[in-house]
Amino acid sequence: MTKRAYNFYAGPATLPLPVLKKAQKELLDFKGTGMSLMEISHRSKEYAAVHAEASNLVRELMSLPDEYKVLWLQGGASSQFYMVPLNLQRGGKPMEYVNTGAWSKKAIKEGKFYGDVKVVASSEDETFSYIPKNIEFSEDAAFAHITGNNTIYGTEYHEWPKVPSNVPLACDMSSNIMDKVIDPKKFGVIYAGAQKNIGPAGVTLVIVREDLLNRVPENIPTMQKWKTHVEKDSLFNTGPCWAIYMCKLSLEHLKGLGGVSAIEKINRRKAKILYDLIDNSDGFYKGHANPDSRSLMNITFNLSTPDLEAKCVAEGLAKGLVGLKGHRSIGGMRASIYNAMPTEGIQALADFMKEFQETNQ
Amino acid sequence: MTKRAYNFYAGPATLPLPVLKKAQKELLDFKGTGMSLMEISHRSKEYAAVHAEASNLVRELMSLPDEYKVLWLQGGASSQFYMVPLNLQRGGKPMEYVNTGAWSKKAIKEGKFYGDVKVVASSEDETFSYIPKNIEFSEDAAFAHITGNNTIYGTEYHEWPKVPSNVPLACDMSSNIMDKVIDPKKFGVIYAGAQKNIGPAGVTLVIVREDLLNRVPENIPTMQKWKTHVEKDSLFNTGPCWAIYMCKLSLEHLKGLGGVSAIEKINRRKAKILYDLIDNSDGFYKGHANPDSRSLMNITFNLSTPDLEAKCVAEGLAKGLVGLKGHRSIGGMRASIYNAMPTEGIQALADFMKEFQETNQ
Repeated sequence: MTKRAYNFYAGPATLPLPVLKKAQKELLDFKGTGMSLMEISHRSKEYAAVHAEASNLVRELMSLPDEYKVLWLQGGASSQFYMVPLNLQRGGKPMEYVNTGAWSKKAIKEGKFYGDVKVVASSEDETFSYIPKNIEFSEDAAFAHITGNNTIYGTEYHEWPKVPSNVPLACDMSSNIMDKVIDPKKFGVIYAGAQKNIGPAGVTLVIVREDLLNRVPENIPTMQKWKTHVEKDSLFNTGPCWAIYMCKLSLEHLKGLGGVSAIEKINRRKAKILYDLIDNSDGFYKGHANPDSRSLMNITFNLSTPDLEAKCVAEGLAKGLVGLKGHRSIGGMRASIYNAMPTEGIQALADFMKEFQETNQ
Repeated sequence: MTKRAYNFYAGPATLPLPVLKKAQKELLDFKGTGMSLMEISHRSKEYAAVHAEASNLVRELMSLPDEYKVLWLQGGASSQFYMVPLNLQRGGKPMEYVNTGAWSKKAIKEGKFYGDVKVVASSEDETFSYIPKNIEFSEDAAFAHITGNNTIYGTEYHEWPKVPSNVPLACDMSSNIMDKVIDPKKFGVIYAGAQKNIGPAGVTLVIVREDLLNRVPENIPTMQKWKTHVEKDSLFNTGPCWAIYMCKLSLEHLKGLGGVSAIEKINRRKAKILYDLIDNSDGFYKGHANPDSRSLMNITFNLSTPDLEAKCVAEGLAKGLVGLKGHRSIGGMRASIYNAMPTEGIQALADFMKEFQETNQ
């Protein structure tokens, strides 16, 4: 077998090795059934147990109060971009968004199909290198929407904006779900494609507060309503069973590490290694994000020229450091270091970056 | 390892053993990358090759002309129930459906959100035990919709209804995609949740004729338009990479067997073993479907009492014959024998059924 790569892809992203090993071991014969989990009816008791455990682990790891419902849906965060305004609209009241980058823009675009969208704050003036402060949402907003972490620009909310008490805050946490302890009661809706921090591609975790389920208009296709899926515990139709199973294994692993508070400490330590290296590189590496807005998950930086960046990406790849190329919209480099990236991977990257600087400056 | 079960679930359903073994072998290290396929970026060259091969295999196995586009979407056939009328509607023209059971009804329900639905034929009068003949669709219909195979009732179209030349025929082939050779040019749209005949749950194959892509209204969320996904070759957003990979392996396996014409012969032989047994049981087993409408994929039958049926299901299970309970809406028993069910499984079921009859009649 090839030596395991350190995988810095922005998503789909690295998964914990013990999780992959368990999945491999169980693949042909799930718990003595003589069948793969992929072959088992979604109505079977064996799958029902997996499904319930996955949801219960989310509930436990995020300390969700009873009034929050856990859904496993398909279609990615890209589908939630329209499901949020569709399900939270309130007869012509403004839907208010913060624009912190490409993913916010996509959410805003879909919101406009459902009514009056207001962008109440934006960091577009400085290439999305910061998270706006003192954001003000209107008292009469149908909802407030933010992007918790911005993979492309490497920025993340470290303080959640205040919202008027009757305005639900919806947050796209695709790239920072469970990276740190949060107070779920600050949110009306949280959603996240699984493929960065909690599992493989193919399933979207949606957490929604019960009282928000009845806003959706009646005359809407069944699959588009959160309510449908809450009523059937995400089993209205056949779900992405394997992806949910992988999330279950990955969340079990997180629980074994000590849960979200434990991974938060690890994440802060991991990110600090790289940010310190960037800050102490005498400008050889230049961080893209403002220090107070830096993401724990995506470390974005530039070198002096695109050629040097390409060289750095290629030499990293040759050393088993995969996926370091930055997103085309800002170029440069990006190390995505989600929950499953081990500290050894960070250390290997830091060692390589130091060496590369010595050879190339 | 537990002895492999013969799995008669209606879906998610049995997969070919060599496919599962290959997936297991590659799970930790996909083609020498040092990463799992689940961890690899959907924009990587490694995943791009899987994605293209899966689509090309569909194209080849179904002999699709160039004007048919292959999509891998999320949300199941249940999402296509609204995406078909949304994408094929034509300014108030009637949308015409045939009702052959529970899945047709669900499709019809979602059609009504988009305009005037006409049910032009139905077999509800006889508990959906047959496929209507001489179905007539209107010249001015926006589209015609049928359910190719009815898992619950065990009926299947053996001849496709005629449609006026300008009316596209849309077919839900979730439970009979690639069970037999078809002429794709008879269809405007074919869709199928993968989890019965071509892969695991979590991905939906949609085949759509190019000229139908521009009917969708402009002012519609991006994810709901087939056009979005055709333009980006199903990579508009992160897709269900693992499920698509599994489909690729399963379609490769089908190609290795000799393709759809080869599996059709096997399927006819497999189904005949069970239907002959039912027909020769002196009424101990009573088939639900009319002989001319019998499904190659789902064999539905009853015994004289629900108690005897329950006994038969339980004794079958004890012999490693899993999932024989019929759907609650008609009770009885059901053996789902999709492409991946080996002839040995059919033989084991037939042997058991004969023995059960001898002991219990």
